[in-house]
Amino acid sequence: MRWRLDLAYDGTDFAGWATQPGQRTVQGELETWVPRVLRLDRAVTLICAGRTDAGVHARGQVAHLDLTADELTDPAVLHRRLARVLTDDLVVRRVSGAPPGFHARFGAIWRRYVYRLWDLPVGVDPLLRHQVARLRSPLDVRALNGAARGLLGLRDFASFCKQRGGATTIRTLLECEATRVVDGPFAGVVEVTVRADAFCHSMVRSVVGALSEVGLGRRDAAWVDELAAGRERRPGAPVLPAHGLTLEEVGYPPDSELPNRVTEARSVRNLPEPALLERIHPESAR
Amino acid sequence: MRWRLDLAYDGTDFAGWATQPGQRTVQGELETWVPRVLRLDRAVTLICAGRTDAGVHARGQVAHLDLTADELTDPAVLHRRLARVLTDDLVVRRVSGAPPGFHARFGAIWRRYVYRLWDLPVGVDPLLRHQVARLRSPLDVRALNGAARGLLGLRDFASFCKQRGGATTIRTLLECEATRVVDGPFAGVVEVTVRADAFCHSMVRSVVGALSEVGLGRRDAAWVDELAAGRERRPGAPVLPAHGLTLEEVGYPPDSELPNRVTEARSVRNLPEPALLERIHPESAR
Repeated sequence: MRWRLDLAYDGTDFAGWATQPGQRTVQGELETWVPRVLRLDRAVTLICAGRTDAGVHARGQVAHLDLTADELTDPAVLHRRLARVLTDDLVVRRVSGAPPGFHARFGAIWRRYVYRLWDLPVGVDPLLRHQVARLRSPLDVRALNGAARGLLGLRDFASFCKQRGGATTIRTLLECEATRVVDGPFAGVVEVTVRADAFCHSMVRSVVGALSEVGLGRRDAAWVDELAAGRERRPGAPVLPAHGLTLEEVGYPPDSELPNRVTEARSVRNLPEPALLERIHPESAR
Repeated sequence: MRWRLDLAYDGTDFAGWATQPGQRTVQGELETWVPRVLRLDRAVTLICAGRTDAGVHARGQVAHLDLTADELTDPAVLHRRLARVLTDDLVVRRVSGAPPGFHARFGAIWRRYVYRLWDLPVGVDPLLRHQVARLRSPLDVRALNGAARGLLGLRDFASFCKQRGGATTIRTLLECEATRVVDGPFAGVVEVTVRADAFCHSMVRSVVGALSEVGLGRRDAAWVDELAAGRERRPGAPVLPAHGLTLEEVGYPPDSELPNRVTEARSVRNLPEPALLERIHPESAR
């Protein structure tokens, strides 16, 4: 039986999602506690939708794990027991039975991140300091959005990604837009929403870093286009700090489409890049 | 020359505003650093608008201090130097020359606090956990507001205050209303805005604590009225935890009215209580 876990965490004191020896990570905490609270004599593995880096937060992370019917029947039991042992920077929002064919990573059709920027001429509001990154000059949100529109759609984001062993860096950017918050505790903060089918490593922080250069008036949209056309990350391209970034939400298709989606996502990721572009979006390939 | 300081702080690691030996307090930090960064060989005293308790936050605290023309002429110097030495949980938002007759405490005509409550059936969002207090059952915001309306206006808030050496507990409650946040990072949180001419010790946390009992369906508005009519704090009356509370804003009259306001505030606070009620609001006295 597969179980879906909806998770939220303050990334400040985690060395990211993925288990690493000797480090406190979100996956590590959960893979330690799930067997203990269920009194299993085996290890479990969690798969998540978005492997967040050290310092990145999540409000809408999704993960799954497989347990036998002997190990768990009532999701409320796992939820309640985890709530008792986890520290308050990691919250399980929900434990639910996953529909047939569900896979937290390959079933997801989009991930929505928000990067929060503080460009006001005063120190960062102390109550927001772990969630917003400071810029020393004011942002022109309109100019930033002008450059952002040029990045939408299917393309190779190699120039915005830390390369990892030959994996594809072709992604579809579905949404990329900045707005300045008008009221409430975040008033004045610029929120950049970035939604894509999937992300490669450090992509949001690099995309928002490049767009911020335009918002600050140091570069123009043509510079972003040129950067985006590159096949490799340029050494000077800015990457914003992790703590301004939050994984807000992960989208899945209707349950009935899950099995096909998972099969497709797995196979598409294994295609060579030109074939991938051709298949997903024939008119824009090459 | 009198200088006005606009301050924001995350109260988590402060033992409140007021200097206390051996404790880290907001006033203590500022009274330590101001003489150092200005290289004064004397102590300075800061007076604030709202003496927040241990753990209470502020986004709109106001304070003042007096310096001679030799000690400071350009407020930007003090602002910049303090920014360099203060830790990031305490931010000076602005340093400005105070208008004639300004007094951070006696000049203020209202203080606005917001108490933030988390009543959702899941653990508190880890990114908000230092700013919202959890309730274990859902709040009926309408019922809470019904009881809140009964507290508006001039009255003796003795039953909501920790008594401090015979000081008056008569206050005018100008605004007291809860709303559930619809979007953004605080979506789902119930914000209770409480604005009064001034507050006595622990008043916001006691008022919101009593109103929450109504919101939770445990008590009715008549119980709040009865509580409010008492002359002393009742031992069982709930006081909510400090970390859900933030001093958001302090209001001052137009500069021209400041000197009169300060004189009035000083003298009014020294009146015996019946005379005070009589003077401020003759029709509601006794």
